[in-house]
Amino acid sequence: MSSRDTAVQPPPLPDTVHRSREMLRAGMESALAPIHPDLALACRYYFGWRELDGTPVQARGSRGLQASVAFLCARAVGGQPESALPAAIAMEFLHNSSLLHDDLMDEDAVRRDRPTVWAALGTPTSLLSGNALWIAANEVLLSVPGELGAVATRLLNESLHTLTNALAAEMNFERRPAVEIALDEWPQLGFGKGGALLGCGAGLGVRLGGGSAAAAEPFEQAARHAGLAWQAMNDVENIWGDADLIGKPGYNDLRQRKRTLPVLAALHAAHPDTAQLSRLWDSAGNSDAELAAMATLIELTGGRGYAEGIARSHLSYALGLLGQTPMPAPVRTELRTMLHFVVTRDPHPPD
Amino acid sequence: MSSRDTAVQPPPLPDTVHRSREMLRAGMESALAPIHPDLALACRYYFGWRELDGTPVQARGSRGLQASVAFLCARAVGGQPESALPAAIAMEFLHNSSLLHDDLMDEDAVRRDRPTVWAALGTPTSLLSGNALWIAANEVLLSVPGELGAVATRLLNESLHTLTNALAAEMNFERRPAVEIALDEWPQLGFGKGGALLGCGAGLGVRLGGGSAAAAEPFEQAARHAGLAWQAMNDVENIWGDADLIGKPGYNDLRQRKRTLPVLAALHAAHPDTAQLSRLWDSAGNSDAELAAMATLIELTGGRGYAEGIARSHLSYALGLLGQTPMPAPVRTELRTMLHFVVTRDPHPPD
Repeated sequence: MSSRDTAVQPPPLPDTVHRSREMLRAGMESALAPIHPDLALACRYYFGWRELDGTPVQARGSRGLQASVAFLCARAVGGQPESALPAAIAMEFLHNSSLLHDDLMDEDAVRRDRPTVWAALGTPTSLLSGNALWIAANEVLLSVPGELGAVATRLLNESLHTLTNALAAEMNFERRPAVEIALDEWPQLGFGKGGALLGCGAGLGVRLGGGSAAAAEPFEQAARHAGLAWQAMNDVENIWGDADLIGKPGYNDLRQRKRTLPVLAALHAAHPDTAQLSRLWDSAGNSDAELAAMATLIELTGGRGYAEGIARSHLSYALGLLGQTPMPAPVRTELRTMLHFVVTRDPHPPD
Repeated sequence: MSSRDTAVQPPPLPDTVHRSREMLRAGMESALAPIHPDLALACRYYFGWRELDGTPVQARGSRGLQASVAFLCARAVGGQPESALPAAIAMEFLHNSSLLHDDLMDEDAVRRDRPTVWAALGTPTSLLSGNALWIAANEVLLSVPGELGAVATRLLNESLHTLTNALAAEMNFERRPAVEIALDEWPQLGFGKGGALLGCGAGLGVRLGGGSAAAAEPFEQAARHAGLAWQAMNDVENIWGDADLIGKPGYNDLRQRKRTLPVLAALHAAHPDTAQLSRLWDSAGNSDAELAAMATLIELTGGRGYAEGIARSHLSYALGLLGQTPMPAPVRTELRTMLHFVVTRDPHPPD
């Protein structure tokens, strides 16, 4: 879940998120303790808790969705939500760490309506704050007593490999002509960027809640597919989304000519306008009119519809999987609501 | 051990380093397996094993000093060197990871006589390659069977906090007038940048070699002090060192007005030329003549001698500590040789 981490007031977050927020914040604060004050302040700023001068605020920050999924997955196997707190903290830290690094790599100046740490404080602070959160995430999981601490930390690092390799694959995309990237190369990005951490949060929630590796499997899978669906929708929003809602400038991904799912689908479409899109992609500038023309062509050739279809089908698979997995009915409802919300921003899943 | 990682042909490396090199390389290769080929190639380039097009080479890379210390510390407590292999791999990975990130933060274009990964392949590859090595280091230690894997990974992450916090403290220095930084603020940098990983390598070597936490203590301490001594000498070399020997352009640190130990000591010296140095520091440009004049004043006011004295006294403390710690005499000799070499590039320690 790398870049769409926003939500202005409407739509409201599912109740699940609010209920866990206080416990999560206290846990995060205590896990920040070993971090140098300058870096910890950058993290608190990024979380939406502080201004850069240290003044407390309530700004847009991480919505805590992955943390909520971890709490819910612990409850799904009969555990107390508190048992998943280390997983929830680790997820929040890694999510934000990956954003701190992403902003730096993409040179993005604005996120969640505020200057990014990269823009406000520079490359080293953005890099080191991300690293500090990463270390702290490992430490929080390693502090889980017994063998489970090592098991959880191994799962975490596996998912970090998956995420990192997906980012490397994305960079590899950027070095190749967009038209030469096969559509079936995209799922590595979807599962890696969108699914790895969400799947890890679900799996860790089950394991810390007392469930076995086998019990964790369907939760992990459901979360990974929802994560891929989220990534596909994120690709759509980064072209057509309302700039206020997503907290970033419009057409951001087009301006950078990112090989996102709608673009790949459009360039591979057997549509009379594909050739024109291809020409614009290679030779147009970055004026609003040119970017808008590109967006229109991507929609016209079916690129947007394709990406939305991928999102729908993977979300539907995820919700179906949860439907078949034994767990208390109220938890199932909340978990389905959460995953539906992650992908669609709509807290009302279909029955 | 963040930036002086070089050694041209003379002086020769201690035998210890050569003996462990083959085992270490095989272990590192296998730990690179889960990493995306583009990132793994960047790592192999950085290790001095490959060109950027994949051609095998033998270029200057990491000398493997921290790995050698880990192997030796396992032997010091009666363990087989192989038992410390996960620690040695983790140390090499973290050392190189921190350099990949350092180059990016400092925008350094050359290291070990070759373009840095940052200069050759850009910010994202340098960042992600560093991250990938970091994840792999955690995984290698987590693969150590039983409770020891978690213990080792905890030690690793503690030392990473120390290192990261030292880098944050260094950035904090750069935002303050050099003259306002007290000399006794420097040891956090020395212990953190120079000592944390070396100390960790020593401690992990003992633990994986079968020694207790108490047995690890003097080895860790000795390595931390040697690491601080190394950092002090590194500060000296980055001003007065032979550019060929250190593999970086001359006066690099002065050009960037880094608040290194010789500079801090010179600015705090009660010497008639301190005021002139202070003026140059604040207002001179970066011509060779201006940088040379600054270097001369830092030497004249005793800054260089002060840093060399710090290096000598901490190295001597480290060697003395090893002298008092029970271990087989040949291992003691090798370990003292190694630490002496790390700091001085001279493989012949005093008796």
